Amino acid sequence: MSKRYYMPTQVFMGEECVKSNSPLFLQMGKKALIVTGKHSAKINGALDDVLEVLSSNGQEWALYDRVMSNPTIESVYDGAAFAKSENVDFVVAIGGGSPMDAAKAINLLTCQDIPKDKLYEGQYSDKILPMIMVPTTAGTGSEVTPYSILTNHQLQTKKSIGSPILFPRIALLDAKYMENLPKEITINTALDALSHSIEGMLSLNANPITDSIAMESIRRISLCFESLKSGQLTRKERFELLYASTLGGMVIANTKTTAVHSMGYSLTYFRDIDHGRANGLLLGEFLRYIEKSWPERVNEILSVMGMSTVNEFITILDNLLGEREKLTDEEIEKYASIAARSANVKNCPIVPGREDLIQIYKNSMNK
Amino acid sequence: MSKRYYMPTQVFMGEECVKSNSPLFLQMGKKALIVTGKHSAKINGALDDVLEVLSSNGQEWALYDRVMSNPTIESVYDGAAFAKSENVDFVVAIGGGSPMDAAKAINLLTCQDIPKDKLYEGQYSDKILPMIMVPTTAGTGSEVTPYSILTNHQLQTKKSIGSPILFPRIALLDAKYMENLPKEITINTALDALSHSIEGMLSLNANPITDSIAMESIRRISLCFESLKSGQLTRKERFELLYASTLGGMVIANTKTTAVHSMGYSLTYFRDIDHGRANGLLLGEFLRYIEKSWPERVNEILSVMGMSTVNEFITILDNLLGEREKLTDEEIEKYASIAARSANVKNCPIVPGREDLIQIYKNSMNK
Repeated sequence: MSKRYYMPTQVFMGEECVKSNSPLFLQMGKKALIVTGKHSAKINGALDDVLEVLSSNGQEWALYDRVMSNPTIESVYDGAAFAKSENVDFVVAIGGGSPMDAAKAINLLTCQDIPKDKLYEGQYSDKILPMIMVPTTAGTGSEVTPYSILTNHQLQTKKSIGSPILFPRIALLDAKYMENLPKEITINTALDALSHSIEGMLSLNANPITDSIAMESIRRISLCFESLKSGQLTRKERFELLYASTLGGMVIANTKTTAVHSMGYSLTYFRDIDHGRANGLLLGEFLRYIEKSWPERVNEILSVMGMSTVNEFITILDNLLGEREKLTDEEIEKYASIAARSANVKNCPIVPGREDLIQIYKNSMNK
Repeated sequence: MSKRYYMPTQVFMGEECVKSNSPLFLQMGKKALIVTGKHSAKINGALDDVLEVLSSNGQEWALYDRVMSNPTIESVYDGAAFAKSENVDFVVAIGGGSPMDAAKAINLLTCQDIPKDKLYEGQYSDKILPMIMVPTTAGTGSEVTPYSILTNHQLQTKKSIGSPILFPRIALLDAKYMENLPKEITINTALDALSHSIEGMLSLNANPITDSIAMESIRRISLCFESLKSGQLTRKERFELLYASTLGGMVIANTKTTAVHSMGYSLTYFRDIDHGRANGLLLGEFLRYIEKSWPERVNEILSVMGMSTVNEFITILDNLLGEREKLTDEEIEKYASIAARSANVKNCPIVPGREDLIQIYKNSMNK
């Protein structure tokens, strides 16, 4: 079977790229739906920049700033109801993965009548509003993916809606919005991006194009490991992490993620551990597990980071993660059962069984 | 000013990917215009594969197999007249850069009435037929670019038509069509791809996404230098070169090319030197010229190939190119004047003047 590479989003990047690309907003229509969270887009200046562009373009907008972390299915129906009442022409999402993912689902549900029980079935028409994404963290890569990952209380996990119609039209990358991001969020989001690119290289759908992009993403993040640890990042390093996270998004847009993400979802759902941190906690031991069957691939990943053993990598992760949360045996068994049923776990040529997942959780969390 | 990355073509890759993706052809319409050259697509099996897919899909086709090397403006008007008379719904191009570039221009002229003197003005509407590209050499990258490069007798050079509407819808990459490609064509096309990625890194439009892709393209080609020299390439290496050339296309789709290409066009136009070879002949000395002002960038390029000096690189090129064609002083002055007027020359932060171009030609050809 052939492999595929596809990523049709136009990516603009650089200092002040929101304001310098104001004509792009103008092409989208008369009225924008702005999707964002409660606080950060207001503090980091991204919302002000977008509003300034829309104002100077003479465009209208409706602000939906009720996106929570790890948005639920219910919340995006709420957003869609708001969007419908406002008669918007396009969507601008500002924020990390939560607002961007929520914006995609809100957009879909604004344009198409999909009952909750059919939301994951992927039987969508082509109707969608054009989207502009302004990431304000460097982790998710959602600005260049066709996925919207939503918390599903029925399944007690996070699950992804995916369709090519969900690719944003435009992504605008400016690291100035990350200037004052707390150290912890910077680390967690960088680990999320790193996980995307590493999992992408371990995916059944990996191909030489995604591998090329993944390797550069991994290399660029690894060059920031020391600064991440110190919490002192230059603007240049902030940009490097942002580009690396977009590259990671270009990877998973094609490869999807693997077991690390599906295992991490339980840490987020049940223990409220940040998504990027959850991936970071599991990534090293997953790599050790894969190494037993596919050492040459793991070696490729390590050597891009200038490392020769998984232990070296885990030492770096330990430095970045600090003390790890502990899990009870019951928690581990439950999480392993949920992960074993997920689609992502089967997305790697080496499919860990439930016992393997238990061992990876144990080695990762209770060491 | 912000930088941009955009490449919306869907790329499918792997053994037998033409036949395994027959449903993609079906989505395109009832009747295909197949654009190819006189011979190679018939010999390497690509045309047979495409015809088999169309037949089994119950689709019709019209075969336009009159594309010459370095197609002229006149020839694409001829192709468009044929396409109009055949009422086709989509375009399938099979071949190297010449058929793929010709197909894009034929498509444009089939859908839009553009007089010859307005062809380069870029004032096109959105009307275009969907295109599938099947490259049968690993060099041009045209399968993922929005360019059609045509020989312009009035300007006595090759000049590019560019528009986002010219991005192919689908690219199908199967290196089996390159299995019996002569050594010389294999080397020349590999040098073309290498030139794309290196020039892309030296472009004003280079950005971290194109750099990432370019570096992997350069690295992958450099790993084949020895096999290229011996003329003994495995299927795996053929695929590596093909992927590297598509990566190079993804780069120049965003960065465009620089002085090497504009200087090379004269070698092709006046001396009938193959396009890839022309770039290969000039690439080393161009890099030496750039090194004087931008040594750190040249060093990045060299180190991806595991080299530390431009001389090392030129030695490799010498090995691949064999004896170089000689130019008279008159030829050099004429070619330098033409290149100095080209847009590509100004596409690098270091713009060589006419005297610099003369020196690069001399050092490259008459050493």
